[in-house]
Amino acid sequence: MQKKAIILFSGGLDSTTCLAIAKSAGYSCYALSFDYGQKHEAELAHAKKLVQQFQVVEHRIVTMNLNGSALTDQDKTVLDYQGDNKIPNTYVPARNTVFLAVALGWAEVLGAFDIFFGANIVDYSGYPDCRPEYLRAFEKLADLATKAGVEGAHFKVHAPLIKMSKAEIIQEGVRLGIDYGMTVSCYRADSDGRACGKCDSCTYRKKGFSEAGVQDPTRYYA
Amino acid sequence: MQKKAIILFSGGLDSTTCLAIAKSAGYSCYALSFDYGQKHEAELAHAKKLVQQFQVVEHRIVTMNLNGSALTDQDKTVLDYQGDNKIPNTYVPARNTVFLAVALGWAEVLGAFDIFFGANIVDYSGYPDCRPEYLRAFEKLADLATKAGVEGAHFKVHAPLIKMSKAEIIQEGVRLGIDYGMTVSCYRADSDGRACGKCDSCTYRKKGFSEAGVQDPTRYYA
Repeated sequence: MQKKAIILFSGGLDSTTCLAIAKSAGYSCYALSFDYGQKHEAELAHAKKLVQQFQVVEHRIVTMNLNGSALTDQDKTVLDYQGDNKIPNTYVPARNTVFLAVALGWAEVLGAFDIFFGANIVDYSGYPDCRPEYLRAFEKLADLATKAGVEGAHFKVHAPLIKMSKAEIIQEGVRLGIDYGMTVSCYRADSDGRACGKCDSCTYRKKGFSEAGVQDPTRYYA
Repeated sequence: MQKKAIILFSGGLDSTTCLAIAKSAGYSCYALSFDYGQKHEAELAHAKKLVQQFQVVEHRIVTMNLNGSALTDQDKTVLDYQGDNKIPNTYVPARNTVFLAVALGWAEVLGAFDIFFGANIVDYSGYPDCRPEYLRAFEKLADLATKAGVEGAHFKVHAPLIKMSKAEIIQEGVRLGIDYGMTVSCYRADSDGRACGKCDSCTYRKKGFSEAGVQDPTRYYA
């Protein structure tokens, strides 16, 4: 029987590549998305199309408001890429911990011990909950938290992109046949999924296509 | 200024005692409840009344379906207390991890670093996500997960009940003026909050009142 995996899946460039990698590694894939009040909710519409393309076994969209971020709060503005080393205001407090916790619950119900997460620490915004030490701490927690863990199971958070540059991620995705024109990464995407080209996420993505020598299929509105 | 604390608050005996302890320790209290598809949803109605009594600053009820448990799934039955050492089918996969993750997010937004959780390992059902080693692992994760943690903050999960017997918890609560008749612990509570008297949760609670020498104010339907 195929091993099952949960894939944290936003419909962006990284998580789509992650899904393709899990699929190509032979996992039976369960995609997990969150409608957490993100302003760029166009990503969810695209996520729904992408999971069909990848023929996941199930796609679950969990609705739950998070806040405290420019991605979610009306009184905070997503800025253009600032180029400094500070964690930007698009950081959502504890977001990835909530996502991984929900993934862990679904995994245990399914009898799955593999969670795929498109975390990256090369071309990224310095978010603390993308770092390898964070992911290792979550794995440790997962084994302690669960009945399956008590019974000897080990949960693994796979982060195959963690040390890849955006260009390398794109090259890998192209090799796996991803149509990146279907993915939405922009923090200020319009309702049709078109991108601003200027936020952190767009900046890293644009640079990635350029460095990968791959034509950027992103539709920009600006 | 008063320090802020998040209290995981189901409206049951333990979390109500935990809230009273946080309050008496001088914290400004923010109560967090979950409508996670529990069959005994009467606990939420009682939670709403209790938070008024305790004058919490804010009470947030997060709605999000969890499953894989007799507490949530229609095709699984909550059994009478079995008296064995197995984790019962009322275990909800990753429930406390999801609860703590959401609490962590809210805490960081509020600038709070104290989370109160009524976990207990004496008169309890052996749930893995109540053990001290689990709580310590969550604290470690919290510091790694957050911007506040990167900046040097330490999150603390307070579990003041962890090593108390149910009788001791009740005696402490009575000392703090709790009317336990307002709290609902039963896994099979009816819509009015009356208890079955026979599930794990009722069994530990009943025994607690008896051993504490406190008249049991619980309303039973059976």
